[in-house]
Amino acid sequence: MSTVVSVDTSDIRFPTSERLDGSDAMNPDPDYSAAYVRIGTDAADGLEGHGFVFTIGRGNDVQAAAIRALSPWLVGRNAEELLADLGGFWRELVGDSQLRWLGPEKGVVHMAIGAVVNALWDLRAKRAGLPLWQLLSRMSPEEIVDLVDFRYLGDALTRDDALGILRAAEPGRAERERTLLAEGYPAYTTTPGWLGYADEKLERLCREAVADGFGMIKLKVGGDVDDDVRRLRIARDTVGPDLRIAIDANQRWEVGEAIAWISRLAEFDPAWIEEPTSPDDVLGHAAIARAIAPIPVATGEHCSGRVMFKQFLQAGALSVLQLDATRVAGVNENIAILLLAAKFGVPVCPHAGGVGLCEAVQHLSMFDVVAVAGTTKGRVLEYVDHLHEHFVTPVEVRGGVYHPPTTPGNGMEMLARSRERHEFRG
Amino acid sequence: MSTVVSVDTSDIRFPTSERLDGSDAMNPDPDYSAAYVRIGTDAADGLEGHGFVFTIGRGNDVQAAAIRALSPWLVGRNAEELLADLGGFWRELVGDSQLRWLGPEKGVVHMAIGAVVNALWDLRAKRAGLPLWQLLSRMSPEEIVDLVDFRYLGDALTRDDALGILRAAEPGRAERERTLLAEGYPAYTTTPGWLGYADEKLERLCREAVADGFGMIKLKVGGDVDDDVRRLRIARDTVGPDLRIAIDANQRWEVGEAIAWISRLAEFDPAWIEEPTSPDDVLGHAAIARAIAPIPVATGEHCSGRVMFKQFLQAGALSVLQLDATRVAGVNENIAILLLAAKFGVPVCPHAGGVGLCEAVQHLSMFDVVAVAGTTKGRVLEYVDHLHEHFVTPVEVRGGVYHPPTTPGNGMEMLARSRERHEFRG
Repeated sequence: MSTVVSVDTSDIRFPTSERLDGSDAMNPDPDYSAAYVRIGTDAADGLEGHGFVFTIGRGNDVQAAAIRALSPWLVGRNAEELLADLGGFWRELVGDSQLRWLGPEKGVVHMAIGAVVNALWDLRAKRAGLPLWQLLSRMSPEEIVDLVDFRYLGDALTRDDALGILRAAEPGRAERERTLLAEGYPAYTTTPGWLGYADEKLERLCREAVADGFGMIKLKVGGDVDDDVRRLRIARDTVGPDLRIAIDANQRWEVGEAIAWISRLAEFDPAWIEEPTSPDDVLGHAAIARAIAPIPVATGEHCSGRVMFKQFLQAGALSVLQLDATRVAGVNENIAILLLAAKFGVPVCPHAGGVGLCEAVQHLSMFDVVAVAGTTKGRVLEYVDHLHEHFVTPVEVRGGVYHPPTTPGNGMEMLARSRERHEFRG
Repeated sequence: MSTVVSVDTSDIRFPTSERLDGSDAMNPDPDYSAAYVRIGTDAADGLEGHGFVFTIGRGNDVQAAAIRALSPWLVGRNAEELLADLGGFWRELVGDSQLRWLGPEKGVVHMAIGAVVNALWDLRAKRAGLPLWQLLSRMSPEEIVDLVDFRYLGDALTRDDALGILRAAEPGRAERERTLLAEGYPAYTTTPGWLGYADEKLERLCREAVADGFGMIKLKVGGDVDDDVRRLRIARDTVGPDLRIAIDANQRWEVGEAIAWISRLAEFDPAWIEEPTSPDDVLGHAAIARAIAPIPVATGEHCSGRVMFKQFLQAGALSVLQLDATRVAGVNENIAILLLAAKFGVPVCPHAGGVGLCEAVQHLSMFDVVAVAGTTKGRVLEYVDHLHEHFVTPVEVRGGVYHPPTTPGNGMEMLARSRERHEFRG
């Protein structure tokens, strides 16, 4: 028996804007940041649950304040009871009628709930002595659906649908886990493609991506169409015709503008076009998808929750689903999203990069292949070579694949010295 | 020449949950609250701009913290420049790439921007010596469209479309203003219909609504269908066949459930069904609207911004648009929403009630009738008889209509003694 005794938040910021790492058409100068939380108990094991919301600088203090405001829901609670019913705790927080008014289920408060939920999953995985992906992959279909709130999904995915998906994937779990451990999970790299990089740097990083064994790279587009054509030509000439090149407009365009712009870039055979317009615009994405077919539309890193993903799937507005580890309300909501994607037969290729997103989201993709979708077909996990050195268990990406983490936890724990050194003091 | 010198925020909460005022199927015990801001300058006039975000209790501290975090964008700025280009200031704040990550354009940060923008409009109106609705109604079409960010609206509403709408309404402005001042703006009352009220209280309040001259009342539904049938029967028997009765489910249902439930209530001839399901579910609302036609679907009080409203209109998912004074990023975004509604020919019947929402939103409806839609046809403005005594300029609702405010400002200024008495101290 143990009790939650502490919820410590911190505002951690890295000055990434100084080198234009992470620069794109909408985010010219991000300072990759984490509104970070540590949940402690009075258990003798001394284990802590760590979680965070990734932000890009200003406002990280507000995000941290929102996490701090959730401590009354945690401090003094029986830890074993909380960890044994994370589905119930999720519903308690997300369903709190007064908090709910501030979204509902979107924005700062929703992401704060995600940080807390993820930190509890970290603690649960550490107690179990398993990396999160293995912990989830060994739960029964019934235990997994109990984690999910099916509210508002009824016209697309029921509890029975979800059970059917999970049961269908059950027989091959052990074999897929072995394959994953032996062969890894396919990665792609966004490292070459930031908009602020000079052509020479783009070319050099494209060559390195090929040499590193990646099967796909991603380039930021949307600033200027002639620049995009030139940069895509450099990239295509450098990587050859077979390596896939995805492009990412980071919400830059109007619907009609997106269609025209993408048509200009079609000759470079894009693997997908990511975030062509407002992340809230289901109907706009659907119109773009129809107009540019067969080029796939990808989106999700700014998708506020499962109700929006449901609609993107219903409308055929995306054909690559890019969930994010810290945009929605944590592991539980991301399981709902993985199940929705499986129901619609759409591959999940998560958003990563930032700070700690690769470390975190790989667990969801690995759970997906072992226990939900049951395949890596059409799936590829974003990789950016930034800031991994700040984590207790940095990702291992070699030969173009993610090698599964074996350390207990959710991967989000940042080194204490990094947290201290990069604490933001205004 | 004056400079912004202070941005004071406060966390103000009223213990409304004690009497079940405001109780509905999703919000059983709201404590009506305001995350409040006062913007001061060093001008000799001593005028302050007041604004707030309405919340229902827990989390109001987070909302206030988000407003406070915006003070670096305000303090030290030239007040005349800010007030002369509120469209530019809106784009500066909403478009800030780092802040934007926390939405984008939704939730706590977006509403905080709304509070600040509304407070600046209050200051501008006070300086002009006009109530906000008159200030807006006397601007030229060009000045009005300069306030609006048309980003992501291009497939539904362009700047030229908006200019056309405003110019078409220009000739009758003065006459409509006179009519409004003489006759008022039609109101409906939600006072009788809270879910927590006993049948006797419902019946008494229905009788009072008729006696007070209202042409429409609204009842909360969605808790239990047999209760809803009984309460609607009481209401219909009390008010007679001609008075309109709207019903409001406050997001309680799944899509299929909504269709079935509303069918049970159709015999009472509802004026509209409000918020049948998740406020993010455009496609769900569209499915409900098709299934229950000709009963109109109303929504908007939780609609996070103009991109969502655009889609609700494109999809035919609402036929009554209920904008809210503090849910989106202030007056500027609400002008975009009024223009979208006018483009699609859909009436705007704002959400009000809460604390101060009636005082605030009436300005938008009155601007709509004078300078945008140019009509009150199909329009009716919510009224709830709560908490008006806390405002410097409480609404004047008599004979079933809102009488236009004539005091300078946006109506959001709360009495200093009320602010002090209800300051929340945790």
